[in-house]
Amino acid sequence: MAGRVFTHCKAATLVAGATGYGLVEDAAIAVQEGRISWVGDATDLPQDYAEWEKVELEGALVTPALVDCHTHLVFGGDRSREFALRLQGASYEEIAKAGGGIRSTVSATRQATDEDLLARALRRVDDLLADGVAVIEVKSGYGLTIEQEMRMLRVARAIEGHRPVRIRTSWLAAHALPTEFEGEADRYIDEIVIPGLEAAVAEGLVDAVDGFCEGIGFSPAQIRKVFDKARELGVRVKLHAEQLSDLKGSVMAAEYGALSADHLEWLAPEDAAILAEKGVVAVLLPGAFYALRETRLPPLDALRENGVAMALATDCNPGSSPMSSLRLAMNMGCTLFRMTPEEALAGATRHAAKALALAEDHGTIEAGKRADLALWDVSHPDYLSYWIGGHLLRGRITAGSYHDA
Amino acid sequence: MAGRVFTHCKAATLVAGATGYGLVEDAAIAVQEGRISWVGDATDLPQDYAEWEKVELEGALVTPALVDCHTHLVFGGDRSREFALRLQGASYEEIAKAGGGIRSTVSATRQATDEDLLARALRRVDDLLADGVAVIEVKSGYGLTIEQEMRMLRVARAIEGHRPVRIRTSWLAAHALPTEFEGEADRYIDEIVIPGLEAAVAEGLVDAVDGFCEGIGFSPAQIRKVFDKARELGVRVKLHAEQLSDLKGSVMAAEYGALSADHLEWLAPEDAAILAEKGVVAVLLPGAFYALRETRLPPLDALRENGVAMALATDCNPGSSPMSSLRLAMNMGCTLFRMTPEEALAGATRHAAKALALAEDHGTIEAGKRADLALWDVSHPDYLSYWIGGHLLRGRITAGSYHDA
Ligand SMILES: [Zn+2]
Ligand SMILES: [Zn+2]
Repeated sequence: MAGRVFTHCKAATLVAGATGYGLVEDAAIAVQEGRISWVGDATDLPQDYAEWEKVELEGALVTPALVDCHTHLVFGGDRSREFALRLQGASYEEIAKAGGGIRSTVSATRQATDEDLLARALRRVDDLLADGVAVIEVKSGYGLTIEQEMRMLRVARAIEGHRPVRIRTSWLAAHALPTEFEGEADRYIDEIVIPGLEAAVAEGLVDAVDGFCEGIGFSPAQIRKVFDKARELGVRVKLHAEQLSDLKGSVMAAEYGALSADHLEWLAPEDAAILAEKGVVAVLLPGAFYALRETRLPPLDALRENGVAMALATDCNPGSSPMSSLRLAMNMGCTLFRMTPEEALAGATRHAAKALALAEDHGTIEAGKRADLALWDVSHPDYLSYWIGGHLLRGRITAGSYHDA
Repeated sequence: MAGRVFTHCKAATLVAGATGYGLVEDAAIAVQEGRISWVGDATDLPQDYAEWEKVELEGALVTPALVDCHTHLVFGGDRSREFALRLQGASYEEIAKAGGGIRSTVSATRQATDEDLLARALRRVDDLLADGVAVIEVKSGYGLTIEQEMRMLRVARAIEGHRPVRIRTSWLAAHALPTEFEGEADRYIDEIVIPGLEAAVAEGLVDAVDGFCEGIGFSPAQIRKVFDKARELGVRVKLHAEQLSDLKGSVMAAEYGALSADHLEWLAPEDAAILAEKGVVAVLLPGAFYALRETRLPPLDALRENGVAMALATDCNPGSSPMSSLRLAMNMGCTLFRMTPEEALAGATRHAAKALALAEDHGTIEAGKRADLALWDVSHPDYLSYWIGGHLLRGRITAGSYHDA
């Protein structure tokens, strides 16, 4: 069966090893049954494709569809009041009393119906789609009971039935300690996180296992127990690590062959070599850095020198990164972390796909990959990281089919 | 002639002196011939309006349409390459050689056709409209010849013919020194800025006169000459002041009865009293603070304590604030400058209208004002400053007519 060839476009292929975004100034992209058959300079298009339907893209810049590899976008409630209270100078206690903090999200998430959770998540998904995103990772972590954590992942999976997007789900029961386990983190790990993980894996809900390894979260020893179970179940792991202190969570995660270590502001530069050696992606989350007004930067030079793949994500969540624009995360990666625009785009495509173990399907424009492409009204890919806000997306190609933005 | 009454909405009226956004939980807003006739609690709607057509707004939050009181959104060219070069570590000289800096924008603006300048400006205007903006200030300052500066303002004024937005234009020939006047700033003021101002005023192109008062811009003495001419011509002034150093530009501007002093990171706290006394609006531009990675905050406490009206704007421009979202400027005002969400919304409505001398028409929901309203899909106005990115606007009412977002 013949496919279609997209022409009259500039393609930033983002292929590994290429410089300058792997840019092809006058590109042709042949697509068949949802996958890319051929990409290259239009003048080199092989004779085999001569009969295929041609679709002219009127000079659009084409990139791989973006991949948001770290979000918490399924949640209930509204933390805007807490945001305002903090800025009015309310103390931590006053905010807790007013029902603020992550526990307010847990409580609201537990009370929300599936329909409500899904409807609110879809609004955030729509924001991401408008930024050219086609793959989104979604974590549990606001249910904190076995059933509620599983419900969050079911809602996340249901997104695929409503929007042209691929969802990957992460089991993040080790996100926060629910009030009913106050002071008993170990018991929570044993009674909820681990048996819940077994149940969720049995139901096919888990693509990866995540944890929040931090003084205010869970200890490396507690995370180890969860990761041991993940290994036993054959599920890949990833970790919120070194966001606020250096507990060597990344090093531990690397030992378990983690897909990614995320945040990393406090990563010791010498540990970058370990991430590189084990192929762990460094997922940088400048939205949280911005919203929390952090000042310590992740060790970019060490990550670069060691050749660690650096991804960027929104960390979309109601507390520390209330943000639903991946392009803005790219700008923040440049402005705040001093990444180059090319590193930022690779971070939101090729490296983000690797962080989700989806490198075979997503993240570059190459023969064999899915034909999930973003079409932009800009003259050069630098512009995607440079301009803040606004609508730059002209359209999307999802599994080979064109959609207006 | 009977008008219409908008009902089933929550209205943040933002009236001066009210606390809590002047919120009316179940509001009715009567509109006739493009102006607000009455606003208040729906149960108090006077009998006079009983016969008027009712339009139910399905629980939307209604705010005054936003006002962006400081932009440079008419310009030619593209500075994204320069953004990338800086992040790749290029030196100032290398960037200048590669055609970077404000001079590249001047050169591209001069070369662009009117049609091209307008088309590109309209894209930025569309971004602002999607954020609920109905009034935009646009400055000249990239032409730097009499004819080119006037052309920029003509293009800015032409926006009104293409979009439902009100434009205010500022003469900013004293923005940068063009290469042809290198080392001769005084001669540039005398030969271009002042005669150009006279010509532009004669053509009716000037709502206010602006300048860039800074070590790398123009001296207070040079700005004085321009302001003296403005005073003679009966045109109000405003000033880019105290962005990178304290030259006491704000104090000088206050002496001339300025509408606003803009940026103000280096404003001495004791000078806030002078702004208050003269009714000068402090226009804060956190987008430039963010993009330039500044660390010195404007003296918020002093501005507050003295009761200075604080506005927020995008400063939309290709160099120091490549941003077209006023809601993001509101979030940055909160996150970076520690404004409250209520100060941020007042800053993007009532105070911004005052900064443009449009307080009689815009900036609050009150009888007598224009019926230019923004309808939001959020439960509380705090949310507008809290959430970063995304599409929160449900629709707009412009001169009393409803438009979907
Ligand atoms: Zn996270
Ligand atoms: Zn400016």
